[in-house]
Amino acid sequence: MNQLKWSKTEKLAARRAFETAYRRECEAITAKLREMTASIQGSADIWRIHDYLTEKREKTDYKYGYRYSILIPVFARLMKEGWLTEADLDGLQDDKIDKIKSSASL
Amino acid sequence: MNQLKWSKTEKLAARRAFETAYRRECEAITAKLREMTASIQGSADIWRIHDYLTEKREKTDYKYGYRYSILIPVFARLMKEGWLTEADLDGLQDDKIDKIKSSASL
Repeated sequence: MNQLKWSKTEKLAARRAFETAYRRECEAITAKLREMTASIQGSADIWRIHDYLTEKREKTDYKYGYRYSILIPVFARLMKEGWLTEADLDGLQDDKIDKIKSSASL
Repeated sequence: MNQLKWSKTEKLAARRAFETAYRRECEAITAKLREMTASIQGSADIWRIHDYLTEKREKTDYKYGYRYSILIPVFARLMKEGWLTEADLDGLQDDKIDKIKSSASL
């Protein structure tokens, strides 16, 4: 994986796709957070929100590692989880898109 | 402090006061949380909410220790911070109320 070459254009496209996925996932977290916050009845609900955010922060910190050496599996995971579509990968070379799609479908 | 005697009636009153303070503080946290959640613009705002809850959870876990040996300073702190009023201490003996008020005013 880490032997792939990324052109300047591809790096820009990859960064854009990466940020799109992160923004979408954060929007989903925000929506869930607003839903949970609206229905707080007592202290246990507050700490449940804290637990939820702790888990999401750990997972997203781990998942959104931007290094070219791991970008194919990172994008594959994001595609599998629904945060990226093939259209978001526009600007990458076909071989990379194929690798991402193939890995996402596993 | 830990030589004070707590009658059954006082224990009930103390528990009620303690729970009142905790409920009020949690209501304040909820209000702040809803305000922060409503104004989320991006990911940094989400993690700021997480930081806020982490701090509040640590502080409230520490502050709301229900042991009779430390209840006078606990109540004094809660009164000083505005989570308890003298009226909430109704049911405690005067000597305890005096100790709490005196400590809260320091």
